Amino acid sequence: MSEFIWPVRVYYEDTDSGGVVYHSMYLNFMERARTEWLRSLHLEQDDIINEHGIMFVVRSVAIDYLKPALFNDALIVQSSLKKLGKVSLVFEQVIMRQGCDQNKDEILTKAIVKVASLNVNQKKPAAMPEAVYNRFVHHSKKD
Amino acid sequence: MSEFIWPVRVYYEDTDSGGVVYHSMYLNFMERARTEWLRSLHLEQDDIINEHGIMFVVRSVAIDYLKPALFNDALIVQSSLKKLGKVSLVFEQVIMRQGCDQNKDEILTKAIVKVASLNVNQKKPAAMPEAVYNRFVHHSKKD
Amino acid sequence: MSEFIWPVRVYYEDTDSGGVVYHSMYLNFMERARTEWLRSLHLEQDDIINEHGIMFVVRSVAIDYLKPALFNDALIVQSSLKKLGKVSLVFEQVIMRQGCDQNKDEILTKAIVKVASLNVNQKKPAAMPEAVYNRFVHHSKKD
Amino acid sequence: MSEFIWPVRVYYEDTDSGGVVYHSMYLNFMERARTEWLRSLHLEQDDIINEHGIMFVVRSVAIDYLKPALFNDALIVQSSLKKLGKVSLVFEQVIMRQGCDQNKDEILTKAIVKVASLNVNQKKPAAMPEAVYNRFVHHSKKD
Repeated sequence: MSEFIWPVRVYYEDTDSGGVVYHSMYLNFMERARTEWLRSLHLEQDDIINEHGIMFVVRSVAIDYLKPALFNDALIVQSSLKKLGKVSLVFEQVIMRQGCDQNKDEILTKAIVKVASLNVNQKKPAAMPEAVYNRFVHHSKKD
Repeated sequence: MSEFIWPVRVYYEDTDSGGVVYHSMYLNFMERARTEWLRSLHLEQDDIINEHGIMFVVRSVAIDYLKPALFNDALIVQSSLKKLGKVSLVFEQVIMRQGCDQNKDEILTKAIVKVASLNVNQKKPAAMPEAVYNRFVHHSKKD
Repeated sequence: MSEFIWPVRVYYEDTDSGGVVYHSMYLNFMERARTEWLRSLHLEQDDIINEHGIMFVVRSVAIDYLKPALFNDALIVQSSLKKLGKVSLVFEQVIMRQGCDQNKDEILTKAIVKVASLNVNQKKPAAMPEAVYNRFVHHSKKD
Repeated sequence: MSEFIWPVRVYYEDTDSGGVVYHSMYLNFMERARTEWLRSLHLEQDDIINEHGIMFVVRSVAIDYLKPALFNDALIVQSSLKKLGKVSLVFEQVIMRQGCDQNKDEILTKAIVKVASLNVNQKKPAAMPEAVYNRFVHHSKKD
């Protein structure tokens, strides 16, 4: 299945006094990448909420921190959709530090992120809109 | 007018790789203190929204950074209501590092924060609920 | 093994426009609780760095989001040390919303957090100081 | 004097349960823009620290919140250097929501940000490196 690549620059706000990116910030970077992956499929989360009453929420994250990212680093987030259900999505997301050439890219962090679709009002699991689901299926088949 | 004191502990999440508290975090600390000041007056912002359709938003901040706060610092936020109008509040807020005794407290940051009351639906300035306003007046007179 | 309890209040800064606490913030709450657990054992992370050249970093997190926390919620973080090695610690941490009585407490989030001790200079795994390790052993035996 | 333009996308992490961008986040957006302005002048803050022992810190911010930014908004930060001294810089920074065309851009937030150069070790005001200062002068004259 194809990978979606999203660049993230590390700013002071992302770091802590240990001199590295604060550990929870990687989850923020990964969420930005998922948002931009949706946008690349012409799906906007606020439209999905307003038109279909469905929102996506994170159900679980399993993340391994291998090497730290540093201030000013140019990172890339690689995201791939690993599983697609009617009410859930499972992503594999890897954050890398960009090297001078692609062979020098370093893997910093890896995660499995499970996302669920909820009914906005009752906040209960609910099937994602068919149009959205089909867009995901179509995207997965392309690769 | 009386001062409201709220303690804040500095954690890794608040610091940056410069080794000090990230400059925008002081605004977060000040907002925690305003929330707790309201709570000390038996006012909860979600209740005010739900019962009266009024929310408080920050209109302006003028903040001076004098000395940096560090990881693990025990801070206190001193807040005083300087001006009270029907649709706005002006606070003076000072963040200090607690010394071994009160004479050793150090002033780190000072701000003037202007807060406005808005109608939740139209997001337009709207007079705060009379019960809330009266609580503020009563609080101001006490001192 | 004994549990360490740390209270966390939810402020606006912790929430997102979905109306709930942003998913990565729970990792911040858990880190505050681990810092305060160390403090309860008379261990300060900056002292350990300065005196022993050892720092603690998060190696992995596996977190399940069961129910969302909301603005103004009074949360508690329950932390227990599940495994203790010379270069690592494994914590189980549970975040609950406090109910009117203890029977009404609701579990919102659960995580397993693995922390490693590193040499500050080389950023390589290194045994934690014996005095620190013994404090952990002593704490574990108490229960 | 010329303006430096930097785009910022609003993600969930930036918003709060009031449905808008949390007020302190605009300071983060402005700092990203100042970092990228430096980068556009081929100046990296970590290099300046390592080579010259000089770091830039925020001394004061006066910010007015005019209209709120919302989830998914495409913002631009306009930054201009208003004053240049040997130990300080004053910026005017404006955050706008991008409209369909330039006439539809809306001003959301305006700030005056004063930045000082410090000696990294003593954390005292210190003249910025001449090469850096000259780059700022050169940049200012261009316009």
